Amino acid sequence: MKVAGKHYRTIWMEGSSVFMIDQNALPFSFEIYCAKNFRETCHAIVTMITRGAGAIGAAAGFAMAQAFMEGANGEGRGAINKSRKSDQEKHISMGEGRGAQIGEYNSVQLEFFDQTRKEIEATRPTARNLFYATERVYNAGLISVENALREAQFLADENVADAKKIGEYGSSLIKNGSRILTHCNAGWLGFVDYGSALAPLYIAKEQGKDFFVYADETRPRNQGARLTAWELQNEGIPHKIVPDNAGAYLMSQGMIDFVIVGADRIAANGDTANKIGTFEKAIVAKEFGIPFYVAVPFSTIDFSLSDGSQILIEERSEDEVLTYSGPDTEGIMRTIRMASPGSHALNPAFDVTPARYITGFITEKGIIKPNELNNFIL
Amino acid sequence: MKVAGKHYRTIWMEGSSVFMIDQNALPFSFEIYCAKNFRETCHAIVTMITRGAGAIGAAAGFAMAQAFMEGANGEGRGAINKSRKSDQEKHISMGEGRGAQIGEYNSVQLEFFDQTRKEIEATRPTARNLFYATERVYNAGLISVENALREAQFLADENVADAKKIGEYGSSLIKNGSRILTHCNAGWLGFVDYGSALAPLYIAKEQGKDFFVYADETRPRNQGARLTAWELQNEGIPHKIVPDNAGAYLMSQGMIDFVIVGADRIAANGDTANKIGTFEKAIVAKEFGIPFYVAVPFSTIDFSLSDGSQILIEERSEDEVLTYSGPDTEGIMRTIRMASPGSHALNPAFDVTPARYITGFITEKGIIKPNELNNFIL
Repeated sequence: MKVAGKHYRTIWMEGSSVFMIDQNALPFSFEIYCAKNFRETCHAIVTMITRGAGAIGAAAGFAMAQAFMEGANGEGRGAINKSRKSDQEKHISMGEGRGAQIGEYNSVQLEFFDQTRKEIEATRPTARNLFYATERVYNAGLISVENALREAQFLADENVADAKKIGEYGSSLIKNGSRILTHCNAGWLGFVDYGSALAPLYIAKEQGKDFFVYADETRPRNQGARLTAWELQNEGIPHKIVPDNAGAYLMSQGMIDFVIVGADRIAANGDTANKIGTFEKAIVAKEFGIPFYVAVPFSTIDFSLSDGSQILIEERSEDEVLTYSGPDTEGIMRTIRMASPGSHALNPAFDVTPARYITGFITEKGIIKPNELNNFIL
Repeated sequence: MKVAGKHYRTIWMEGSSVFMIDQNALPFSFEIYCAKNFRETCHAIVTMITRGAGAIGAAAGFAMAQAFMEGANGEGRGAINKSRKSDQEKHISMGEGRGAQIGEYNSVQLEFFDQTRKEIEATRPTARNLFYATERVYNAGLISVENALREAQFLADENVADAKKIGEYGSSLIKNGSRILTHCNAGWLGFVDYGSALAPLYIAKEQGKDFFVYADETRPRNQGARLTAWELQNEGIPHKIVPDNAGAYLMSQGMIDFVIVGADRIAANGDTANKIGTFEKAIVAKEFGIPFYVAVPFSTIDFSLSDGSQILIEERSEDEVLTYSGPDTEGIMRTIRMASPGSHALNPAFDVTPARYITGFITEKGIIKPNELNNFIL
């Protein structure tokens, strides 16, 4: 998507560095963060410089590729060179790598790759795309460093292609006059480009449709108020920010035609982990008979989990609830206290919406009912 | 309740001034605001220096009494003195005043009282207690200024007595180990003392019960995170602040035994207007089979409204959503931007929870089912 007329991806790799739009600085300033090694990329995921299912996946893939570069540049340069010669220049699918052809790394390097993979996977436990990308790039990297780099880039490109298709399928739901509620940010900032929940809006806008978006503020980190609102503004889509508390009110007043959200991890039965508050919106939407859609690429679906009870929910620091940072009236960034000093907070970052509350999944393969997901296991 | 060992009411009158704990300064500093005339008291209601159903009611009653003092001290001193002589020293009930015995005010004064009443009633349109108090003090004031003052004080005392009884009835619901969710602040700060939703907690605490409270942050003004948390801290009740978004998650994890909230206005059929987000919690609680209680004095019930569709919902400034004020890391109060600059927000301050979602009303007359409210019309 474009920022001030220039096309950007949310995250990309150049040489051994990973570049990403700093989402903690947005919408108050537009900055590019450069992660020079895999640890800096991990840091960017943990601190949410980059965030959102798809962007985390791309970041994790790039981080794993960086780890292979770093491991190869350390003890195992000779082994890596040998491996390069036998590089088959083929795309390695998930699960094929390890058993097939292992690059001639020494045991210290292999240990390093295992360790770095664990470090990357520990950054955000709920995000399915993170594990999907790490596994694929890890397996590719066992063949060669080039393979790891190629796989990481492939995943980023795949993310863009999937998001665009999600947008095309999803835009069929949007009519002139539609009023749409979305939670958190599953826009292009949450992906490599286009987004998942917001991709249908961008395609519908390109198609000349006229509609209105209510963006949930999405406490505690306000991704809706900061990022979704910023994206919609840049794309010229009419919208208003609403407190998360307003959902039932808006629906009771007939002000919402459907809800569309993204997801961080989906179990095989359709149970969906997404930003805290999603479950609440889904219950309320069902109560009012309002369709509730989850827009995701298949890479977010974890077919190894039979249901949502197996999804690990990340609990984040209470400081995210108790304090907030933003520019003061003079534009100087300040961190202020939001709550009574001395009181503590609980900060579960996600919740799991059972499949029965979900009208359909908007995917790169079409709009699919929860009970039909299983038909798509590869 | 006590602040640093000293007993305070939330609001009280001395001479012609109304004193109140400044709830915009809390919990970061404890300040008393002094409203020297009825307009300053109105200002305090509009700007939420004082807020909460019961406290607004008391403030409105005092403001109406101030208006009578001001009107009498202006054109009508002679008439008022005459009226004083015939003061029957009796408590005037709602609706009796105008038809009974009208103080010898001149037409300018009567016009002034009508106008000031309208001004007071325009401060917060959703709060039933405001209209209840204004009407009662207005009718009393038509007899004499003293009567107005006495009635306003009576209403404040009645508010305390009702709140204490609500606490006593409600405490029967609290057991050792109970986990209670509350939304917004219906504590003693929202009343003259004790509170409505929090009164049962304070009585249960006095009874030695051991329980835990989750306080919804309550965006956009964070009355839960700022005021409820502060009250609970002062009373030594274990608690945590949770983002409003966490309700369904907490309930789905079996972490909530019941929900208790206050109300701003209740229709005769039990439909309940309260802080935005209440309706959402009620829907979610019902989905999980968790009891949902509304704690209120009868003065919050508006028997003139057959159902909630007739309750006017106040829409407040979008700035409450888009900006926030609190102390920075050095304790200096700052106002920061919470959202993307250039985006707008919608800020409905209340929603209406239909009676069918409400397990019971905890009142000064006992715990009453919604369909039994009508039995209590006077």
